[in-house]
Amino acid sequence: MRVLVPYRVDEPKTRLAPVLDDEERREFSRLMLTDVLGAIREAGYTPTVLSTASLPDSTVPIPVEGYIVDDRPLTAAVNAHLEPETAVVMADLALATPAAISELLSVDDGVGLAPGRGGGTNAIVTHHPRFQVDYHGASYRDHVTICEQIGADARTIDSFCLSADIDEPDDLTEVLLHGTGAAADWLTERFELCASNGRVGVERL
Amino acid sequence: MRVLVPYRVDEPKTRLAPVLDDEERREFSRLMLTDVLGAIREAGYTPTVLSTASLPDSTVPIPVEGYIVDDRPLTAAVNAHLEPETAVVMADLALATPAAISELLSVDDGVGLAPGRGGGTNAIVTHHPRFQVDYHGASYRDHVTICEQIGADARTIDSFCLSADIDEPDDLTEVLLHGTGAAADWLTERFELCASNGRVGVERL
Repeated sequence: MRVLVPYRVDEPKTRLAPVLDDEERREFSRLMLTDVLGAIREAGYTPTVLSTASLPDSTVPIPVEGYIVDDRPLTAAVNAHLEPETAVVMADLALATPAAISELLSVDDGVGLAPGRGGGTNAIVTHHPRFQVDYHGASYRDHVTICEQIGADARTIDSFCLSADIDEPDDLTEVLLHGTGAAADWLTERFELCASNGRVGVERL
Repeated sequence: MRVLVPYRVDEPKTRLAPVLDDEERREFSRLMLTDVLGAIREAGYTPTVLSTASLPDSTVPIPVEGYIVDDRPLTAAVNAHLEPETAVVMADLALATPAAISELLSVDDGVGLAPGRGGGTNAIVTHHPRFQVDYHGASYRDHVTICEQIGADARTIDSFCLSADIDEPDDLTEVLLHGTGAAADWLTERFELCASNGRVGVERL
């Protein structure tokens, strides 16, 4: 089982720009990658990083199967490196737990899909030779349709941890509330929870 | 095991006012309640509705254990009706599945907590005689603290379905994408998915 973790090296997490500067976004993004790789390792698998540019050796302290550099857009890069037994786990799942990764990777037939909030697909495992990803738009729905077209059983992984990709300032709330890894530690040193209009958000310390 | 489903009869779902009028919000809210009660029934339990005012007999077509009327705020009303073996499931979990409810109710010791997005607690099961709820603010964190204080083991239920309470217009996206019940059917007749700024939202048909 190959476990790919796509990672964008240049200008990661641009939608966090309202609250994190360039350098902070790079650091936070790298720490989330570290946490995701660590959860995969703890689940008993060795991840492969699929990055848009080569990474310095010091980027992540987690042992990996290898690094693949592919500067194409996400969908093309992932499809180029899909083998029949492959999982794809997004690098910004700061809440990912070994248990959730294990549940995903326990899907041993067809295709397993972990939906992200807002229609995305945050993690996939495929055992079908003709499955291809399409991350544009409401990709979860598209992936279910692709499975129907190729006759692959699609199983949905019902995980809050895997549903929480960290893209926008509001998402940082989830990291402060539920995160236990390096990204959460880093964020906790800089932000705290606050309440406004009955909603919970984050603000600088 | 008592399974309480709190339900606000007057002016439900006010934060959906930008997209649904008063009558629509009442109808949509009632259909979400129906779906939640149905999921609990399919999981093998008979729910009790805890409502802020008496409900007409025709409100929900699902057999229930009974109706309790308590017009106090949510926290006070729930605490007044907590027995040592009680679950509390919010009425706006339009994605709730029997499988997710079963996982919650499989917690057979201490307290089980299903976090909602944004710090809430969307479902609880308690076996501890001193556990009390506190739904104000970031209640998930508060509930974990309460468990520590009374020496109750707290177990987190990792469920995307249970994390998605339907409060705001953006949340309707999740209902259209993942819902399979009466509320999703009703919404599908009135709204469709749309993409704007790379995000998926909903718009009137």
